[in-house]
Amino acid sequence: MPPDRPIVTLTTDFGLRDAYVATMKAAILKHCGYARLIDVTHQVPRHDVLCGSITLERAVDGFPAGSVHLVVVDPGVGTDRRLIVTRLHAQFIICPDNGLVTWPWRVHQEGEAFELTWRPSSGKLSSTFHGRDIMAPVAGMLATGAALETLARPIDDPVLLDISPATDDRGTIIHVDHFGNLTTNVPQRLLADRTTLSVRAKHHQIGAVRKTYWDVEPGKALALIGSSGLLEIAVRDGSAEKELGLLVGDEVTLR
Amino acid sequence: MPPDRPIVTLTTDFGLRDAYVATMKAAILKHCGYARLIDVTHQVPRHDVLCGSITLERAVDGFPAGSVHLVVVDPGVGTDRRLIVTRLHAQFIICPDNGLVTWPWRVHQEGEAFELTWRPSSGKLSSTFHGRDIMAPVAGMLATGAALETLARPIDDPVLLDISPATDDRGTIIHVDHFGNLTTNVPQRLLADRTTLSVRAKHHQIGAVRKTYWDVEPGKALALIGSSGLLEIAVRDGSAEKELGLLVGDEVTLR
Amino acid sequence: MPPDRPIVTLTTDFGLRDAYVATMKAAILKHCGYARLIDVTHQVPRHDVLCGSITLERAVDGFPAGSVHLVVVDPGVGTDRRLIVTRLHAQFIICPDNGLVTWPWRVHQEGEAFELTWRPSSGKLSSTFHGRDIMAPVAGMLATGAALETLARPIDDPVLLDISPATDDRGTIIHVDHFGNLTTNVPQRLLADRTTLSVRAKHHQIGAVRKTYWDVEPGKALALIGSSGLLEIAVRDGSAEKELGLLVGDEVTLR
Repeated sequence: MPPDRPIVTLTTDFGLRDAYVATMKAAILKHCGYARLIDVTHQVPRHDVLCGSITLERAVDGFPAGSVHLVVVDPGVGTDRRLIVTRLHAQFIICPDNGLVTWPWRVHQEGEAFELTWRPSSGKLSSTFHGRDIMAPVAGMLATGAALETLARPIDDPVLLDISPATDDRGTIIHVDHFGNLTTNVPQRLLADRTTLSVRAKHHQIGAVRKTYWDVEPGKALALIGSSGLLEIAVRDGSAEKELGLLVGDEVTLR
Repeated sequence: MPPDRPIVTLTTDFGLRDAYVATMKAAILKHCGYARLIDVTHQVPRHDVLCGSITLERAVDGFPAGSVHLVVVDPGVGTDRRLIVTRLHAQFIICPDNGLVTWPWRVHQEGEAFELTWRPSSGKLSSTFHGRDIMAPVAGMLATGAALETLARPIDDPVLLDISPATDDRGTIIHVDHFGNLTTNVPQRLLADRTTLSVRAKHHQIGAVRKTYWDVEPGKALALIGSSGLLEIAVRDGSAEKELGLLVGDEVTLR
Repeated sequence: MPPDRPIVTLTTDFGLRDAYVATMKAAILKHCGYARLIDVTHQVPRHDVLCGSITLERAVDGFPAGSVHLVVVDPGVGTDRRLIVTRLHAQFIICPDNGLVTWPWRVHQEGEAFELTWRPSSGKLSSTFHGRDIMAPVAGMLATGAALETLARPIDDPVLLDISPATDDRGTIIHVDHFGNLTTNVPQRLLADRTTLSVRAKHHQIGAVRKTYWDVEPGKALALIGSSGLLEIAVRDGSAEKELGLLVGDEVTLR
């Protein structure tokens, strides 16, 4: 059964203590009073475009066709950086053109990018909060089914982060979650045929790829395929981030 | 006036920085596009089943008949631990069979328990996120009014935590809230007739049971009946947790 | 396009780890099952009425006529402090009469204040959670369109915080946001004609009022008009709060 109302998700680095998120929601509802609003997170680390991009991809993966994803991690607000809308996986992503779209763009290869040309009437545009003044209204309009072409013009050069894809023998840690689990950019298919694969991260020998956390003793590190279909490094009942001292960007080798 | 849409609440230890909660919501909405989703909390301390259970009971207490409560604190994910649905107080609780259901089960004594037999089609089941892959879809189905018997089979032995009930002269601290207030397992009815009751917790003499925080000076400890109908220990304008050094599990005596 | 359902926003100091917010939502929905619930924040610092008031004003500013704002920062719960409803900017604010209404009341000068006379039937009123027991039900009733006059009686003396308005040459820091940006009480119109204005805060010479963060080098302090239309002090890509050591209440001078 499809949702009865269009979905708009929100992903930002705004935190939860101010009214910023609520005022973006008000701006969406002004244009689409029947939208369903879903918070993905507002705790992307400040200005961390890579983290925002990876979190966004997880949201795109789960939601139905027609969903609109509003993503505001916007260190360049007030400059002439572009705002873009991307149509991929039958969904829309609205964000600054700073690389936020990278991860879903790579995962869902048939994307189309547009530069947002819609602007509010004069006097309604701040120089510090385009999430509220431009992107949220556009999210509302797209949720009502407004034609993208009336709000934006096609482009073929969205800014993409320079992330090397994983290879047969190495990958990179791309994300740390709430539990301290370390997600890599190594997709399950790269591992598929290799049942004896063992994983190394910096000086840590993690060992064979396991099926569940319970395949090792409490407190021990393991590698397994996480819920996003990517190789993860975890510590059972612990934090791999803290206990292994690994960071986003650290290399993982597969043998 | 009853809600116009079925309510699904969410209680987890997932935190708020990842897309995990949003992807569970997407999975609920896939099955019940008109559900109303209410976050209870996603800040249950990691793997803290007792805390999750007590928080859950508070949610069950407030919501109307037919509400569905999805509760995911799941250290055993990937093992063969059961997933269960409980029907009590005319509501449904979906959770791992690890004791999470204990508190509402004890408070609302006429409960029925079921083992969840529904599973997604093969290829859609991760080994690390049954909240998204099994429990959230079932929450959506129950919200649409699907017959529980088509998704689960009756059991008579849900796992329950071993929590001693309070007696006439002693109880236990079971929860610490955001303000540092300490909730005990002593229900108001145990105190009803005893107007001169005084409370002791470890080496602290808390004194008589008061009516409001304002019955003591700022910074002083007091006992009172909290909003859940249980005896609480608080410090006026302060944190009883920090200032008295008391913890979940500490004993309280009533004289 | 107006919202299809009445909006009720929530602003509290309850934090996010307990079921308190969810039980308030249940109480609203009991009276108005079709309300749209929007969290503004639950991270107002404990008992910080000024912060709650300023955050509230931002929410009032964005939402449509008929919206109901429930604001619970209530150190006096259990005393005989009044509960009030304020009608201003064609919206309703429900809160304890402790100054929470100050900021929207000052910004939207044509307000009417009422003392809440509605109470739940006996046995349903705790002494510690009037947000759930009184204010949330009233929020639900107002959302359905219930006549305010049946729930409250007019008063002309709501409690207001003693905040001096900004003058031509000085103002005050009134809020610190998630990013460490410092909002002052100096509205844009006070600056309008003065293009050479320079800002000083304590011993820091902040310099001319800029248009965007990018008008200074990374790590440098600047003054600009924030998204609320008030003068803000920020540090580009940093935290003005931490790096300048400024606090709510500190004075700002304009030359």
